Amino acid sequence: MGLTVKATIASFGGKLFKLSHPSSSTGTEMAVNLYLPPQALKSSQTKKVPVLIYLSGLTCSPENCSEKGFFQHGASKRGLAVVYPDTSPRGLNLPGEKDSWDFGEGAGFYVDATREPFSKGYKMDTYITQELPQVLFGQDSEFGKYLDAERVSITGHSMGGHGALSLYLKNPGLYKSASAFAPIANPCECAWGKKAFGGYLGEDDKAKEEEWKKHDATELIRGEKWRGNKDARVLVDVGTGDNFYKQGQLLPENFEKAAKEAGVEGVTVRYQEDYDHSYYFMASFSDDHIDHAAKYLGLL
Amino acid sequence: MGLTVKATIASFGGKLFKLSHPSSSTGTEMAVNLYLPPQALKSSQTKKVPVLIYLSGLTCSPENCSEKGFFQHGASKRGLAVVYPDTSPRGLNLPGEKDSWDFGEGAGFYVDATREPFSKGYKMDTYITQELPQVLFGQDSEFGKYLDAERVSITGHSMGGHGALSLYLKNPGLYKSASAFAPIANPCECAWGKKAFGGYLGEDDKAKEEEWKKHDATELIRGEKWRGNKDARVLVDVGTGDNFYKQGQLLPENFEKAAKEAGVEGVTVRYQEDYDHSYYFMASFSDDHIDHAAKYLGLL
Repeated sequence: MGLTVKATIASFGGKLFKLSHPSSSTGTEMAVNLYLPPQALKSSQTKKVPVLIYLSGLTCSPENCSEKGFFQHGASKRGLAVVYPDTSPRGLNLPGEKDSWDFGEGAGFYVDATREPFSKGYKMDTYITQELPQVLFGQDSEFGKYLDAERVSITGHSMGGHGALSLYLKNPGLYKSASAFAPIANPCECAWGKKAFGGYLGEDDKAKEEEWKKHDATELIRGEKWRGNKDARVLVDVGTGDNFYKQGQLLPENFEKAAKEAGVEGVTVRYQEDYDHSYYFMASFSDDHIDHAAKYLGLL
Repeated sequence: MGLTVKATIASFGGKLFKLSHPSSSTGTEMAVNLYLPPQALKSSQTKKVPVLIYLSGLTCSPENCSEKGFFQHGASKRGLAVVYPDTSPRGLNLPGEKDSWDFGEGAGFYVDATREPFSKGYKMDTYITQELPQVLFGQDSEFGKYLDAERVSITGHSMGGHGALSLYLKNPGLYKSASAFAPIANPCECAWGKKAFGGYLGEDDKAKEEEWKKHDATELIRGEKWRGNKDARVLVDVGTGDNFYKQGQLLPENFEKAAKEAGVEGVTVRYQEDYDHSYYFMASFSDDHIDHAAKYLGLL
């Protein structure tokens, strides 16, 4: 698997590992950070710790949230590992890949692109749900002995909030719970989502009707896999001072309404007064999202 | 006084204000961040909150620790304000000011320079101990009603750790307590300190003998103001994995030894296994330093 350890950093009694590995999904070397809490590193350790995957937002790398999200604080307290993947392949040099900050490099949207040229390498759904767990939790991984591949939850911010919700909803049972900060909750209906889904999945009417909806959290929660579910285990926080929320890029109300209309229970959407879209917002509530995951990972 | 509010950001139930003001000490516009905890902003508020001044390290601005130090977490819990000043004047365009990252802009070392050309504007001691409190706590400040000018403590990182210890020790009674992360604890004896003190205070033997020692925490703690003091109220954390510690830039042992030999009590120096010089280190222990200050500010 070829995990390269680029740095090991003490953090809240545990260790943050800055890693990279060659990816067959993307065809590139992918960066990923892994936080192991002190509970995983105790010499008397006999039980593996559960894992929370955190998906970053537009333009971000694994570094941003590792430094500014404050997840290690709660993870250290509860005893769970945190995985911080990158947001796209980097260095493929595809045409148009670097033309904008909200599409292409740093903006993979956690879907498998089907449209040329991005179908070459922009396979972030496969990367996050299949390859990365194998790389980190598998038998060949030096970290496999610490991480419980059967107890994994997912969270994320903005584009990564969309990623967390959509990957969770597409794959019932794969994750024990999901949460999101300021997610792009209904990408079919906002500018960011239309640009990304158009570029990655196709812009013709058929693509919009058949493909886009398969990756949209609001469409997924009212779909057949979730309709009537009584234990959805979803927590969403949105700041009322978030300019992207005000501009209609996030649309959490659509997600909330769709869940309600489909009789889905266990979806909590909270509107946090005055909070913006930044890491200051996430840091203020990351303990809550750690606790949400910890509850369903058997730690609380 | 002319405080300009550039941004107001919700953080851990309180507000972070990004401010700037014209400074008579430096002759420049100075940036400063101020965190007000939720306790200060309650409408039923009747008591002012105490203040912790945090002094940043080499190259940093008020932004770095506001984003990555997580002092807001503990400050929100205990009910104290945090002030994040800048590390030097910026934009004076003095000869040599931008030639290196460890001297000049971003590296004011919290002393009043006496040597040309830095004696023009590099007055960070006066700025931190006299002007900034007046600007923030004074009658003309819109924040004066929230902040208790009589209950102030000081902390800092690296160069700012030196700043916190030296300003505290130079001015008994001005601050209720002091703490430091990885401080440059004996600048007269390390490369960073010799370069800074030489450039700001003079390089001749007389300057070294008479001036340098007035600003060196290790010299100050064994001096007449502190000798035999039984309640020094100083907490220092240093990571054993800190490369600057290993290179002899920090010398906390010299500080500890000087305090002990001078019969000073109440100085705690902790060596934290494996921690480095980064904000990951500070974030892991910022709650402890908040609690150290909170104890002497009457909050614990």
